[in-house]
Amino acid sequence: MREQELMEEIQKITSTDKKSFEETKAYQDTLAKPPGSLGELEVIACRIAAITGQMENYVEKRCVMVFSADNGVVEEGIASGPQSLTLSQTQNMLDGLTGVAVLAKHYHSDLWVTDVGINGEIHHPQLISKKIRYGTDNIMKKNAMTREEAVTAIGIGIETVKAAKKAGYQVIGIGEMGIGNTTTSSTVLAALLQLRPDEIRMVVGRGAGLTDLAFRKKLDVVKRALEVNRPKHNDPIDVIAKVGGFDLAAMCGAYLGAAIYQIPVVIDGFISIVAALCAVRMEEKVRDYLFLSHCSHEKGYLQAQRELDLKAALMLDMRLGEGSGCPIMFEIMETACMIVRDMATFQMAKINTDYLEPIRDPKSFE
Amino acid sequence: MREQELMEEIQKITSTDKKSFEETKAYQDTLAKPPGSLGELEVIACRIAAITGQMENYVEKRCVMVFSADNGVVEEGIASGPQSLTLSQTQNMLDGLTGVAVLAKHYHSDLWVTDVGINGEIHHPQLISKKIRYGTDNIMKKNAMTREEAVTAIGIGIETVKAAKKAGYQVIGIGEMGIGNTTTSSTVLAALLQLRPDEIRMVVGRGAGLTDLAFRKKLDVVKRALEVNRPKHNDPIDVIAKVGGFDLAAMCGAYLGAAIYQIPVVIDGFISIVAALCAVRMEEKVRDYLFLSHCSHEKGYLQAQRELDLKAALMLDMRLGEGSGCPIMFEIMETACMIVRDMATFQMAKINTDYLEPIRDPKSFE
Repeated sequence: MREQELMEEIQKITSTDKKSFEETKAYQDTLAKPPGSLGELEVIACRIAAITGQMENYVEKRCVMVFSADNGVVEEGIASGPQSLTLSQTQNMLDGLTGVAVLAKHYHSDLWVTDVGINGEIHHPQLISKKIRYGTDNIMKKNAMTREEAVTAIGIGIETVKAAKKAGYQVIGIGEMGIGNTTTSSTVLAALLQLRPDEIRMVVGRGAGLTDLAFRKKLDVVKRALEVNRPKHNDPIDVIAKVGGFDLAAMCGAYLGAAIYQIPVVIDGFISIVAALCAVRMEEKVRDYLFLSHCSHEKGYLQAQRELDLKAALMLDMRLGEGSGCPIMFEIMETACMIVRDMATFQMAKINTDYLEPIRDPKSFE
Repeated sequence: MREQELMEEIQKITSTDKKSFEETKAYQDTLAKPPGSLGELEVIACRIAAITGQMENYVEKRCVMVFSADNGVVEEGIASGPQSLTLSQTQNMLDGLTGVAVLAKHYHSDLWVTDVGINGEIHHPQLISKKIRYGTDNIMKKNAMTREEAVTAIGIGIETVKAAKKAGYQVIGIGEMGIGNTTTSSTVLAALLQLRPDEIRMVVGRGAGLTDLAFRKKLDVVKRALEVNRPKHNDPIDVIAKVGGFDLAAMCGAYLGAAIYQIPVVIDGFISIVAALCAVRMEEKVRDYLFLSHCSHEKGYLQAQRELDLKAALMLDMRLGEGSGCPIMFEIMETACMIVRDMATFQMAKINTDYLEPIRDPKSFE
């Protein structure tokens, strides 16, 4: 995909359907429960209705999309594991052995794994091979990739979602495997938020597990990467190309794809939410298609969450990555839709609702 | 059940098995993920192992237990709905129409509904009829019930869990249906926490939906009920008898039963957590058997949560009651156990774990 084509794709994104949102909300108030008492489950059902344009929905055909790539910056010693883990854990994911794989299986979700830039070869019939090259360059020294490569990687994300739409998926979730990618994500987030050097600490965390020494290095690397590359905060493609990664770029594309093809999409974890923020900065309507699984431990997560103004449903202190929280969230979303489909109305439950009037309009009671 | 028998039952409660907890923790660190990265899911699996005394567990046979009863205090106008809702919603629950009923069905959970004091008659083959009488007395004017009645209601909770254990349930969750029971729960909590009159506001919320006027009334009622009845904070039976309810008492008994019969038990919502705190105040070992579903909207919830020092897994802003969050939590607990059963070890995933040493002992890296 070239940049002109990418811009044309993004222009296809439309707002979600407010009428279906309101219809679902009104219908939920006829169900045999105090109005609004199912909280976020009600909001989730309304938001899904707004995406599909209908009140009755299913979140049964599910897919976690994992994008794997290597990041040149690992040579600075900022990751908790060796680069070879990207290759071996992607292989293990395809073999059904990692966290996201067992969780996806348990929750009847498919798992699509795409190689956008792993430093090594995987031969597996299920792998989606879209390798751009064998990992990005070290952002501490130069741009991670060219602008053309960033656009290509974003296009890969969009195309993957297009294929998922064609296959009939009703929800997707976006995960990653890429040693070093909390460092690139922190750098991208710092750039998007225009943080001053002394504010960078707000978005740099300990990744999957870092020693104090490696953590201080990571802080330095993020600062230095911003000085060396000078990404333009209001041009997400520039930010991704200069200080991001192939994984992050493809994930950003997947969120754009979800909005283009109108599929609810789950954000899971720090890298996932930074990629989502990139997509929203490219087109703010993307926000309407996003759902947060668990609240991440990683420091910058809350900053990105505040920017997106979305609520997380799970508090499980997970910090595995891989999109491992997505399958659990799919089930929560299906639960929200199931309530609209299956719960009885006050009328069916033979309850006189006169008593609800003051609740619906508390002022009338004063 | 008489008080002497109740005390004998409580003395059967033992601590959970620390060895199984530690074994499960150690085994989880051999799984192909950064140590601890599945967060609370890992803790949940360890805590369940400590209860059952074995590492491999299933949370598949599930039961939400709902205790229904009426509360005399509703005549003060502190509830958002009429008393008749207790009867009609209990009937609807049995007919599979309410929130907890559709959620339980979706998550393959059975639903046991016990009448401990509804003001009316229900004829339904599935109802467990243990009515003590047609609702408690108005705590604004006198004791809710006699001490003997409180002990009887607690005994009903214990006996219900005994039957569940016999039927092979692997997890239970505790819910309620009782108009006015957020008022009794707030009063019980204020008594247990020895709150001063000016601190009562900390534990009084808007229930399922209250107008400002009704909310101020509710605050007054709680204060007055404490003055009139003078419950003894260090005697939970006294507190329940004087300012509680039959629903709350039976729920307290169910938590005691879960500890006696060694079944993991889910707390869901404000009334449920206050009943659990009563049980823990009677025997602190009960705490080890408790799991929190969602973090409740209701004001006093966080106070009770702090006392119990337990983490909630869901953030769904639910305020329906009925134990409606339990089925979702059962699935989270099953997920935690499934990971221990199904996920690959580093060895199976062919990953050299030398790189993990500094993570496991960060000081060695400095």
